[in-house]
Amino acid sequence: MRYSKLFGKTVKEVSSEIKLVSHRFLYQAGFIRESVAGRYFFLPLGIRVRDKIMRVIEEEMNAAGAQKMVTPVLHPLELWQETNRAESVGFELMTIEDQRGGKFALGGTAEEMMVDVVRKFNVSYRDLPFNIYQFSQKFRDELRARGGLLRVREFMMKDAYSFHTDEKDFASEYESMGDAYSRIFERLGLSTVRIESDNGYIGGDYCHEYVVESPVGESRFLMTKDRSYAAHEEVAKFERGDMNPDEKELPLEVKDAPRGPTIADGVKLYDQPAWRQIKTIVFFTNDEEPVLVCLRGDLDICEVKLGHILKGKKFRSATREEVEKLGSVVGFVSPLKLKCKKIGDLSLKTVKNFYTGADEDKKDTLNVNYGRDFEMDELVDVALPPAGCKSEDGQDLSEGRGIEVGNIFQLGTHYSDKMARAVFTDSDGKDKPFYMGCYGIGVGRTMGTVVEVFNDEKGILWPKAIAPYQVYLISIGDVAEEAEKLYEKMLSEGIEVLYDDREERPGVKLNDADLIGIPLRLVISSRTLEKDAVEWKERSEAEAKEVKMADVVKLIKDYYLK
Amino acid sequence: MRYSKLFGKTVKEVSSEIKLVSHRFLYQAGFIRESVAGRYFFLPLGIRVRDKIMRVIEEEMNAAGAQKMVTPVLHPLELWQETNRAESVGFELMTIEDQRGGKFALGGTAEEMMVDVVRKFNVSYRDLPFNIYQFSQKFRDELRARGGLLRVREFMMKDAYSFHTDEKDFASEYESMGDAYSRIFERLGLSTVRIESDNGYIGGDYCHEYVVESPVGESRFLMTKDRSYAAHEEVAKFERGDMNPDEKELPLEVKDAPRGPTIADGVKLYDQPAWRQIKTIVFFTNDEEPVLVCLRGDLDICEVKLGHILKGKKFRSATREEVEKLGSVVGFVSPLKLKCKKIGDLSLKTVKNFYTGADEDKKDTLNVNYGRDFEMDELVDVALPPAGCKSEDGQDLSEGRGIEVGNIFQLGTHYSDKMARAVFTDSDGKDKPFYMGCYGIGVGRTMGTVVEVFNDEKGILWPKAIAPYQVYLISIGDVAEEAEKLYEKMLSEGIEVLYDDREERPGVKLNDADLIGIPLRLVISSRTLEKDAVEWKERSEAEAKEVKMADVVKLIKDYYLK
Repeated sequence: MRYSKLFGKTVKEVSSEIKLVSHRFLYQAGFIRESVAGRYFFLPLGIRVRDKIMRVIEEEMNAAGAQKMVTPVLHPLELWQETNRAESVGFELMTIEDQRGGKFALGGTAEEMMVDVVRKFNVSYRDLPFNIYQFSQKFRDELRARGGLLRVREFMMKDAYSFHTDEKDFASEYESMGDAYSRIFERLGLSTVRIESDNGYIGGDYCHEYVVESPVGESRFLMTKDRSYAAHEEVAKFERGDMNPDEKELPLEVKDAPRGPTIADGVKLYDQPAWRQIKTIVFFTNDEEPVLVCLRGDLDICEVKLGHILKGKKFRSATREEVEKLGSVVGFVSPLKLKCKKIGDLSLKTVKNFYTGADEDKKDTLNVNYGRDFEMDELVDVALPPAGCKSEDGQDLSEGRGIEVGNIFQLGTHYSDKMARAVFTDSDGKDKPFYMGCYGIGVGRTMGTVVEVFNDEKGILWPKAIAPYQVYLISIGDVAEEAEKLYEKMLSEGIEVLYDDREERPGVKLNDADLIGIPLRLVISSRTLEKDAVEWKERSEAEAKEVKMADVVKLIKDYYLK
Repeated sequence: MRYSKLFGKTVKEVSSEIKLVSHRFLYQAGFIRESVAGRYFFLPLGIRVRDKIMRVIEEEMNAAGAQKMVTPVLHPLELWQETNRAESVGFELMTIEDQRGGKFALGGTAEEMMVDVVRKFNVSYRDLPFNIYQFSQKFRDELRARGGLLRVREFMMKDAYSFHTDEKDFASEYESMGDAYSRIFERLGLSTVRIESDNGYIGGDYCHEYVVESPVGESRFLMTKDRSYAAHEEVAKFERGDMNPDEKELPLEVKDAPRGPTIADGVKLYDQPAWRQIKTIVFFTNDEEPVLVCLRGDLDICEVKLGHILKGKKFRSATREEVEKLGSVVGFVSPLKLKCKKIGDLSLKTVKNFYTGADEDKKDTLNVNYGRDFEMDELVDVALPPAGCKSEDGQDLSEGRGIEVGNIFQLGTHYSDKMARAVFTDSDGKDKPFYMGCYGIGVGRTMGTVVEVFNDEKGILWPKAIAPYQVYLISIGDVAEEAEKLYEKMLSEGIEVLYDDREERPGVKLNDADLIGIPLRLVISSRTLEKDAVEWKERSEAEAKEVKMADVVKLIKDYYLK
């Protein structure tokens, strides 16, 4: 490709709204353009990278025995109603009606569609297992779209769905998909951590995210040093050690408390650590039931865990008036007096002689002990793991932050139980629901993540496997004829070349080469031609060298085989 | 691939609603399944064919210098408003609103989107020309979806858009794209006719369809024997020969006409050919203006031509009451008395002594002559070319019917004039609008067309280039071990094999092989093994032969190179 004819050239200016380095470089170097927030054009350079990523995914999915197919983008809404997801997915789901009154969801994930096509066949145990996958455009009506390819509203996704007779058969596919994911991300140059995660609105009993560590990632996770345990903060289990096991339980005492409503205000008044307090929050569920949630003062509520405890009901914080109507005062609510559903974190059992509000303004109750003075309806894990916590088996957990690039879900019979005729005929002649799993990779997000990881101050450093071209060829000075010859020779040898044939200053061309980030840059000039050579510079190396013109094709091929 | 593990096996039963042979075989053989009318799943066999078609298109587009990219599927509706197409495309356009109030069209064609991305760059004459294309899912909210892949509501389309400084530069790209289309369809095994066609809501001055002749096609066209002229009936020009040049013009005469309202009723009453009558139809435009359209009685109105004459206004037939209000009677309307806009076909000048209604019930006027007795506001081409007509230069036109698989459009400055900043900087430093063209191929429709053309009573006959697999391997009897060995050997040689490893009767396997239509079938049985051979049968040949086991891989490779 001649750079002079390439649609989508580099630009210098970047809007100050572009914050992420991946967004900035993909924009500047001419890989993507925003249509509207969260919806992107992939320009010719960008689609080459995206296609290569898709090819890697496709090869590994096929090698793992999965079968490619594709569903329509518009899903009959009645399928989503069959599994109650039209409701639970809520605002993220975009729906549309055609002129004949047909209602559709714009596909964001395709569990129902895949079950629907499978149930059109009378599948028997002999046909199972199989794993079917597609690449298709997905839609999520997100309120916020972060810049660039990391969180978008429309994106290319690989989504796979496996069908099994039973859990055991599924378990081996789950591992096989995990292995395929490891190979895929490795080939893309990405080092991933596999973490336990929450299944959101997908359903099922367990799932894992593949996360690339990055400070701009949205996934905070905890892991042991040997990574034998790694989990998203929303599901991570952690030890709640006893804080003061040797203290004696003291008698209850109510006293004036001239403090503000926050935990910090209590710490200041009593000069005691935060764990000494009970943190109490009043919520209302969407069916208007008040729920009191208590945990140790140094911990924070994990809303995802609370959501599961409330069995998927939506909830919101109570207003000041609602707290007063229940008989307490904001900042001084305690679990001792209020009559409502009470959920406590396991940490309530790790402190002797808590203090807490006395359900009156500016009054606290001291020496409160779980079991002796109050109990909760449920004592469960409802806290976010704090920095420096330990795993349940006592190992140190370190914190990580990363970008989710893929996920794998056990679905079990979550969908096949809800959908009519989602069954196979077993060897005993009986109809049984499919046991299922599903497996996703966001293609664009993976591309953005690669750039987040592989860049320097000058631009992108594409991994060899997914670089838009293999060689960036620059001619400097009056050497067009020799440059053309080399360009044509490389093309005839099947080498992918971006040939910067512009009449531009050398500095402009060299800067663009660094910005675009093709792994190998070749410069041909009168100086190199004197020696019958070209300058060879790898994007990841600081120094250039010269190689003989006669060797260059072979060296390129060797370089890309490495 | 082992057939036992393939998702999407053959079925015997076909719904009586499935009429087209391509629909029936693609369904029965397990290539596609309908989600809802006009929206299809491509099953694993189907996606392999679709992918191969896309690869052929991509290779030829790239070879012609076009650059692949991709736009979002959701187009900001304001872009379609910028060109007034949100209105004119009308009901076919699906629109949707996101939760932040953003309005979008589901892309059906992407002229505005491509202009929008191009205008984000400050393009100069040096950057031109370029041709950018994409493969993406397209949506058309059609009222009727024919069975199978021939007319659908959602489909994969290749759409390309070229940008030029001027018409001359565009003209060479138009020819280059035409050549690329010829190569594409030739590689897919399809013989196409290139016909002049109507541009519908795309705009521009001229365009061509690539049509595959087929009795189930929706495009009726006319062509000269040497195909130097070929045009869709909606745009075809034809000679209107004088019917009775030697007759003398006779005096007008009004007389009782005890006939019904149709042309046939007149023919019966007067025992004269249909051309002797004036056919008169009253329309109302969408701004409620009455329009009288007249043509020779043996011809039919071409509504597409009329639409252009009315400058894109929508129109409908007048009701009986409206005709009476205008001062006439249905079945007896004439161009002589009514006061309204009058459009006549050129054929009105080819008959002497027409008869027509007298604008009173059961009364006709005889011996009506154009020029002497009446004139029209416009005398233009508003008729469909009838069977047996001649071209304007007097050659016989034969009728053809076919399936439109691709089209190429001159757009000129149709879009760049309407859209702000759709300009390039010319060598004189001035901003000028792009001169554009666009070029589409429906991938699924092309696949359906291939099956319409290549089939017999047993099933499909895929052309080699796009067959889902290269070899259908069947084992008969107790030869699993040898069959496995051959299967593995072919895989290791890079041959695409569908291995029918089922424990099924030979007849079932042989029938499925014919139905699925892979070009080459190999059968391994104890009988062939005795001779250290396999049975070799090409789908297109009646007879099988035997080939030596040792030669089979080489023969397959040779066969596919042919």
